[in-house]
Amino acid sequence: MNEFIGHDFLLSNETARHLFHDYAEKLPIIDYHCHISPREIYEDKRFKNITEIWLGGDHYKWRAMRSNGVEEQYVTGNADDREKFQKYAETLEMAIGNPLVHWSHLELQRFFGYHGVLNGDTAEEVWNLCNEKLQRPEFSARGLIRMANVDVICTTDDPVDSLEWHEKLAAEKDLGFKVYPAWRPDKASALRTPGFVDYIKKLSEVSGVKIASFEDLKTALVKRMDFFASLGCRVSDHGLDYVPYQPVSEAEADRIFQTRLAGNEVSALEEAQFKTVFMVAMGCEYNRRGWVMQLHYGCKRNNNTLMFNRIGADTGYDCISNFAPGAELADYLNALQMTEELPKTILYSLNPADNQLIGTILGCFQGGVTGKIQQGSAWWFNDHKTGMQDQMISLGNLGVLGNFVGMLTDSRSFLSYPRHEYFRRIMCNLIGGLVENGEYPNNEKSLKKIVEGISYYNTKKYFEF
Amino acid sequence: MNEFIGHDFLLSNETARHLFHDYAEKLPIIDYHCHISPREIYEDKRFKNITEIWLGGDHYKWRAMRSNGVEEQYVTGNADDREKFQKYAETLEMAIGNPLVHWSHLELQRFFGYHGVLNGDTAEEVWNLCNEKLQRPEFSARGLIRMANVDVICTTDDPVDSLEWHEKLAAEKDLGFKVYPAWRPDKASALRTPGFVDYIKKLSEVSGVKIASFEDLKTALVKRMDFFASLGCRVSDHGLDYVPYQPVSEAEADRIFQTRLAGNEVSALEEAQFKTVFMVAMGCEYNRRGWVMQLHYGCKRNNNTLMFNRIGADTGYDCISNFAPGAELADYLNALQMTEELPKTILYSLNPADNQLIGTILGCFQGGVTGKIQQGSAWWFNDHKTGMQDQMISLGNLGVLGNFVGMLTDSRSFLSYPRHEYFRRIMCNLIGGLVENGEYPNNEKSLKKIVEGISYYNTKKYFEF
Amino acid sequence: MNEFIGHDFLLSNETARHLFHDYAEKLPIIDYHCHISPREIYEDKRFKNITEIWLGGDHYKWRAMRSNGVEEQYVTGNADDREKFQKYAETLEMAIGNPLVHWSHLELQRFFGYHGVLNGDTAEEVWNLCNEKLQRPEFSARGLIRMANVDVICTTDDPVDSLEWHEKLAAEKDLGFKVYPAWRPDKASALRTPGFVDYIKKLSEVSGVKIASFEDLKTALVKRMDFFASLGCRVSDHGLDYVPYQPVSEAEADRIFQTRLAGNEVSALEEAQFKTVFMVAMGCEYNRRGWVMQLHYGCKRNNNTLMFNRIGADTGYDCISNFAPGAELADYLNALQMTEELPKTILYSLNPADNQLIGTILGCFQGGVTGKIQQGSAWWFNDHKTGMQDQMISLGNLGVLGNFVGMLTDSRSFLSYPRHEYFRRIMCNLIGGLVENGEYPNNEKSLKKIVEGISYYNTKKYFEF
Repeated sequence: MNEFIGHDFLLSNETARHLFHDYAEKLPIIDYHCHISPREIYEDKRFKNITEIWLGGDHYKWRAMRSNGVEEQYVTGNADDREKFQKYAETLEMAIGNPLVHWSHLELQRFFGYHGVLNGDTAEEVWNLCNEKLQRPEFSARGLIRMANVDVICTTDDPVDSLEWHEKLAAEKDLGFKVYPAWRPDKASALRTPGFVDYIKKLSEVSGVKIASFEDLKTALVKRMDFFASLGCRVSDHGLDYVPYQPVSEAEADRIFQTRLAGNEVSALEEAQFKTVFMVAMGCEYNRRGWVMQLHYGCKRNNNTLMFNRIGADTGYDCISNFAPGAELADYLNALQMTEELPKTILYSLNPADNQLIGTILGCFQGGVTGKIQQGSAWWFNDHKTGMQDQMISLGNLGVLGNFVGMLTDSRSFLSYPRHEYFRRIMCNLIGGLVENGEYPNNEKSLKKIVEGISYYNTKKYFEF
Repeated sequence: MNEFIGHDFLLSNETARHLFHDYAEKLPIIDYHCHISPREIYEDKRFKNITEIWLGGDHYKWRAMRSNGVEEQYVTGNADDREKFQKYAETLEMAIGNPLVHWSHLELQRFFGYHGVLNGDTAEEVWNLCNEKLQRPEFSARGLIRMANVDVICTTDDPVDSLEWHEKLAAEKDLGFKVYPAWRPDKASALRTPGFVDYIKKLSEVSGVKIASFEDLKTALVKRMDFFASLGCRVSDHGLDYVPYQPVSEAEADRIFQTRLAGNEVSALEEAQFKTVFMVAMGCEYNRRGWVMQLHYGCKRNNNTLMFNRIGADTGYDCISNFAPGAELADYLNALQMTEELPKTILYSLNPADNQLIGTILGCFQGGVTGKIQQGSAWWFNDHKTGMQDQMISLGNLGVLGNFVGMLTDSRSFLSYPRHEYFRRIMCNLIGGLVENGEYPNNEKSLKKIVEGISYYNTKKYFEF
Repeated sequence: MNEFIGHDFLLSNETARHLFHDYAEKLPIIDYHCHISPREIYEDKRFKNITEIWLGGDHYKWRAMRSNGVEEQYVTGNADDREKFQKYAETLEMAIGNPLVHWSHLELQRFFGYHGVLNGDTAEEVWNLCNEKLQRPEFSARGLIRMANVDVICTTDDPVDSLEWHEKLAAEKDLGFKVYPAWRPDKASALRTPGFVDYIKKLSEVSGVKIASFEDLKTALVKRMDFFASLGCRVSDHGLDYVPYQPVSEAEADRIFQTRLAGNEVSALEEAQFKTVFMVAMGCEYNRRGWVMQLHYGCKRNNNTLMFNRIGADTGYDCISNFAPGAELADYLNALQMTEELPKTILYSLNPADNQLIGTILGCFQGGVTGKIQQGSAWWFNDHKTGMQDQMISLGNLGVLGNFVGMLTDSRSFLSYPRHEYFRRIMCNLIGGLVENGEYPNNEKSLKKIVEGISYYNTKKYFEF
């Protein structure tokens, strides 16, 4: 029997252990997509206790607790922090197979030096230990990032964001890591969202461009991209229900945009048409700049209206959507490719049943840049051993796994960096298994190149950090 | 090499063997969803031979035989019982990997004490052995149920059913197990089915409620639910092509209902609209009563019209449907949740590609009750090692596996109870594997709680039997 | 650690090794579906170097190279053959997990006797070795086929094809293997394809039937089928986006056909309607002849318009499509079954998420012929260990695996035959694993029958070669 989350956790063969401990483990982290707050990094946030840092904003944990029958007051409500922690510890005991068990214990081990098991019986001990440590200076936001050997962080930022904290961070000396903004312009094409017109006004103010047409919108966004670029931005991100491709002329897109800007409603089809033209324009611009385009899709958000009305978005009420026509995704990429303006692109679907479809779409648009079109690492609900294995096996079967840009946390927490370790263990186990099974040569040079590449160097090269 | 279906069948590690043999194996069975006949239980049916009990109504076996090229006369036709048995035995030899191999041999071992291999060569020996045993008094319907250590059986019953056999069973002393009805009102919303108007007439008679409106329909159904409840009913069941959500007002639903009642046709959309309102009404009523709502979907039935015309429904001509919009399922559950009337719910899709989608939908509606929204155990065509593993791995990844209510037979046969053993072996193997692999702590107390829970106690608590 | 692609490659247990080496390995190959050129067989083509035979037309390799960032000139362009080979060798090093690694090395071992590892460092050595051998007489097209122990080859041919090379091959003595045409009439129903009208003219000429109606079209095709049959054709093949079922009358189909023939456009729905009637007519005719109908679907082709315009079709720009309504597929088969005219049929979807759906559709139309309706072996992008395992596990779970007709290459290359070995190893490993795991009896007679059947005899019997 293997030790619970021990030294060789998830490394089931000799080659895997060698690859992980001798290559992957030592490399720094490039976290090219996350949701942590640049302000909290700048202000070097401190945490009063483990409940704040663990349960303050983590909808993964909230969902598990609710599944365990925990009342909402202990999840996002006003219950005492110690009680909330107890409920979480008790939930973890029942959550066999859930990555929360692994993440939580990896975090307890790596940051707090706790190597026991967290459950209802040990919650008190863990509570005291963690809270004592959180008082120490090195347990600030910056301290945790440094402890995790992080090289680069890309946050997620709206075009209207002032990026003031990014500016301040850029001016810091001896930070020990880089923090860059990432460009997420979802609101600029969400025509059917109630606040759209106000958003465009805001964008107009921030950019200094009067926005009365689609052309103006693009001008304003390009100005903001220049600003983002000046602070090191190399990557965009789009959150889409699915990737639409309903092409219309720029003139028609402009008509739809102006209809909405005038306060009128537009149909779902019109929104899809506008988004198509918008996304083509964005893609061309990313390509011009050498930015990476990330497309996240296959998600249906805010499914529990009652709770949305009470506690808002990003609170654990999202699910996979199985409406995502692969044909439109392929046609969208083709539209950019037609004019040779397809940027480096990373595709993520929340539906793991799309793995192979994506794997085959990649291959239709490759060339020129190593691993130009990527399948993103197993995203969100798929961010566990099964999901990562499936994504890498599929990528291996259908593409060139050695060029994979690997892991990102997509997290809101300063404690999530061990997910990179988790990923690297799973990746080394998979690769080691192929070698041990006689499916890939036991060639030290090639294996080192591949493992170090997926852990770190491919990312560095691909994003050009 | 492991013995064929031996003592440690499917238990590939030490922890799995311990968990199964010391905990799971000993617990009784709660078969909360099946299709056996309460009349046959009451009358304590006897079987003239193994062909009657095995091949009399088992469309799994029929499909396998047809795949093996067996002519229909040996499947559902007039061929001699001994010859039919021979054809089945010969089919089994070719059906490597099929759960029928496991189910059939588990049944031969557990009920008949036969530990050999059934194939064409041994068919005569098995035929004689089984038929001799079937003459013994303990091989009656009730005897078989007792032999299998069954605690509770929930049959599947239509609202118009008199439940006379349930009433008689309820009056029996020393039965040794409980038999409850389950509520399956599919016909009451199947507007486009030819017999719909007659069905409503029948429901009117049985309930004593004149049904001229949707309101009347609900009144009639509520009266029948009271009656079902008086006989211990705690669970409903809906068989749907997919879970629709096309909301309209009650007035509009009433108009559609009355249109159909007047003998006119309604469109597919109108039926979906009516079903939406109907299903919301049902859900609210289940919630009020504390009943569990089961939703079975993703099936396309009676695909072979020629055979349907010859031998009717449930004869082995159904398949998976891949049209099942997850968005409508989520929106339906949300509609109930909006008014805090969402009952305990179990979701089953026949399409295993929906596992992860369901796993993420569950998490959007949890809270208050432990494991309130469940993903049902691998259903029908998925009821095998692969299907069960995939369902439990997905549930583990996305939810809290320790709260899973586990197995049901969904069967029409008195010999199917070893499927619970099959499930428990697979479950213990999975859990044991996680422990041995260092992915879950080797904590005896927690493991006992989880394994006994999934085998028996979670079910008992969830359904409140 | 197992040797890289060694003697027991992919055979992880004793039973698997026995089944492969003692049964599967020795049997000849029936390659019932491929895309090699009968002319090249007749002319006994020679190859000037390994780049010509490996990279001349293999879009699998091209895709991998593009994914590795290789410029198109080294893929399909004018670069030097030695340089192209270098780029491929370097790509292979990064393509861990990709079946190209296995196929390429199996081909190097079996045909060229090279047992080392091909990568950038060894490319020169391999280049010289292969090219030297390719000069030898036994490395001609026919020689390679004989070296691979091939019994039967079915090419893929259009109804308008003269089959002149098939006629010549049929007249050859001492060929040592059989070459039959296969019937692929896709163009005859592709109403919305630009060249349709010209195609019908060509068909008219070739068949000697004036085609002015749908009835004429059928007459012409039947005449061509007679001709194909005279040269040993036993199998058809259809490449469809998805299998449509939009039934209309023959009169309506005729109207649509004549509309198009007159040079007018037809809608996508009209094309689907025409195809439905066309496919029913084809199916009936296949059934009458005892031909096998192959349906390949789930593919979206030519996604990169820029490259299509430069280098045409079949150049590595296709992907999986996730639009393939299972209901229409089932209804199409039912339409044929209604009149008892459903032929032997093999279903292939490019989307592995359809495996289980297909597995359940099979079972709705079986009977009379052993394994009448088959799920085709993992196709194209799924033609790797994972894909084959998943297909066979699904088939085992849902049908009768012992009747499976097994592998085909679907290849354009004379070196692809080791894919049959690859398949047989994976098949034996799966079957051996089931035995070792106690899931199937260790019965030598049954195992021999199953393994030899899937490797060779089932195919021979099913196609009636």
